[in-house]
Amino acid sequence: MEKIRVELAERSYDISIGTNVLNKIGENLKSLGLSPKIALVSNPTVFSLFGKTVLDSVKKTGFDTFTVSIPDGEEYKDLLWLQHIYNELLTHKLDRSSALIALGGGVIGDITGFAASTYMRGIPYIQIPTTLLAQVDSSVGGKTGVNHKLGKNMIGAFWQPRLVLIDVDTLKTLPKRELVAGLAEVIKYGVIYDKDLFRTLELNKDRILNLDRKILIHVIKRSCEIKTEVVSKDEREAGLRSILNYGHTIGHAIETATDYKRFLHGEAIAIGMSIEAELSQRLGLIDRDHLVRIKNLFDSYGLPTKIPSTIEIKRIFSSIRLDKKAVAGALKFILPEKIGKVKIHKGVTEKLIEESLTH
Amino acid sequence: MEKIRVELAERSYDISIGTNVLNKIGENLKSLGLSPKIALVSNPTVFSLFGKTVLDSVKKTGFDTFTVSIPDGEEYKDLLWLQHIYNELLTHKLDRSSALIALGGGVIGDITGFAASTYMRGIPYIQIPTTLLAQVDSSVGGKTGVNHKLGKNMIGAFWQPRLVLIDVDTLKTLPKRELVAGLAEVIKYGVIYDKDLFRTLELNKDRILNLDRKILIHVIKRSCEIKTEVVSKDEREAGLRSILNYGHTIGHAIETATDYKRFLHGEAIAIGMSIEAELSQRLGLIDRDHLVRIKNLFDSYGLPTKIPSTIEIKRIFSSIRLDKKAVAGALKFILPEKIGKVKIHKGVTEKLIEESLTH
Repeated sequence: MEKIRVELAERSYDISIGTNVLNKIGENLKSLGLSPKIALVSNPTVFSLFGKTVLDSVKKTGFDTFTVSIPDGEEYKDLLWLQHIYNELLTHKLDRSSALIALGGGVIGDITGFAASTYMRGIPYIQIPTTLLAQVDSSVGGKTGVNHKLGKNMIGAFWQPRLVLIDVDTLKTLPKRELVAGLAEVIKYGVIYDKDLFRTLELNKDRILNLDRKILIHVIKRSCEIKTEVVSKDEREAGLRSILNYGHTIGHAIETATDYKRFLHGEAIAIGMSIEAELSQRLGLIDRDHLVRIKNLFDSYGLPTKIPSTIEIKRIFSSIRLDKKAVAGALKFILPEKIGKVKIHKGVTEKLIEESLTH
Repeated sequence: MEKIRVELAERSYDISIGTNVLNKIGENLKSLGLSPKIALVSNPTVFSLFGKTVLDSVKKTGFDTFTVSIPDGEEYKDLLWLQHIYNELLTHKLDRSSALIALGGGVIGDITGFAASTYMRGIPYIQIPTTLLAQVDSSVGGKTGVNHKLGKNMIGAFWQPRLVLIDVDTLKTLPKRELVAGLAEVIKYGVIYDKDLFRTLELNKDRILNLDRKILIHVIKRSCEIKTEVVSKDEREAGLRSILNYGHTIGHAIETATDYKRFLHGEAIAIGMSIEAELSQRLGLIDRDHLVRIKNLFDSYGLPTKIPSTIEIKRIFSSIRLDKKAVAGALKFILPEKIGKVKIHKGVTEKLIEESLTH
């Protein structure tokens, strides 16, 4: 089992990555000083695959557990289902040292983490992410929250897990399209931070798509390390952390313009990263060669790089202006300068954005 | 204007205390680096008294403001009204650097602070407490939250304000009963931390009850200093901070047993502090003389010190066991050893509690 230590003073924690490790979760909890009662939060799909293994391991270590089930889907990551979690925790009388375990993808991780951050003003939680996207992105870094009808992730908190346990074997049951969408975030880490990771992704496409365990552990571990390094330096996204948003300003706008129905998150940000790389090239910040390599890598994994012509450009613009990352009206982009390096660029003109959107 | 600096690293902030200072709130906001849009959260009663003064001052400094109104009463400090605040903030497109101002008592402060802590994963907020209880207790220390039908303050977060502005003139319009209930918390600071404050309260009852500005500023400032000192050393209530809960274990149980209807919070904790002092004396931790002085001081301000005989003792016990401060079943009490000093005492027997309850 590989380990990464996330250094955040008294909020530090480990990320453990391996194969066939779900049945070891119980042992991993022993040293965390938790109360005996633990709530497992999951959805029916994931629970039917891995629930029993996790529960057995937790119970064998002496914990008393119960399960809270949230329906499967982004539309349930809302205040109503959050309230359902609170009801269950209070009914089962969880105390301040009790823990929640989030078993599932980003939706389960986000809502469970937020419930943990606000139940009795904050209790421990453990992430067991079962999608590639959650393993390399949402389970690491402590961003938690739910959606509001007026915006995604508008209600939330920064709250660090006490442990993240990643079992790459869970990816065997993940639909191919979701696996590929998760790889968009891995490619992102290559572009913003690590040219070697980018090169690995260029050279090992078939092994990765065939779920070769060794290469999967390598790219997931490297992704977690990069995210961890960035988050440790800037937990609350005051500066550096925003480089993780490369591709996300336009990506989110595409998701909003298509009501989150047409693209998976990873697909939308693949388009966002391609367009923002294009924007960077038009500003003279990145060479044409690097731009082409970025777009080709998305292409080779079967990820989209262009905005569909059916989306009205003005809808994209109105979303960009509403973005949570916009402060007092100023538009800010994360733009690649070469593979492995990005900069935060303020004050991009709307004309240039439009040209890049329609290139 | 008197100032106290609350030292909490990058979350440090000032408490300003004075008379006739509501009209200076605008100036105080200028240096905080806020976005131009500000939401004022209040209730109709308080807003009708001080709303215009605050809004005029804020607007004069160049901020754009709107008001969010929450009905007056503890029963509205819930997830439903929290959601109302979120809706308003999103409708008015507040961004990550926008601030909320809480103008009111503890209910407004708690729900506004919690909204601030969870809107876009945390935005700034300012406390303008208008009751004595809020001025000396709930506005300081960063505890925020709402009630759940299964328990008070069960959902919440630690989130520090950027500024607390206390205008003692607001106490002129506060009902006498509420003023006295607020004094219970002031007496608490005397018992747990400061024998001089306790003495001041013994010697100056009439000046305090007649709202002499000088003595009010002195006791409010000293209360805030004590709370601040304790909170700075233990922000998340891992240890020392729990001394602030003196009287609260039994006090909360009394509130629960009477459905929060018969006593104001300060009245319930006055009883709680008297009973817990009694408990301390039975354990041989405090002299009879000190116990008598504590109970006499509550008496002299017209605060209750005994549990009404109509309350069933077993209801008190079932509440105590459910207390948020109980961890894994262990009962813990904060007990005075003399005036100005308390200790955290674990493992008090239920028999002794019962004797103290019925003394």
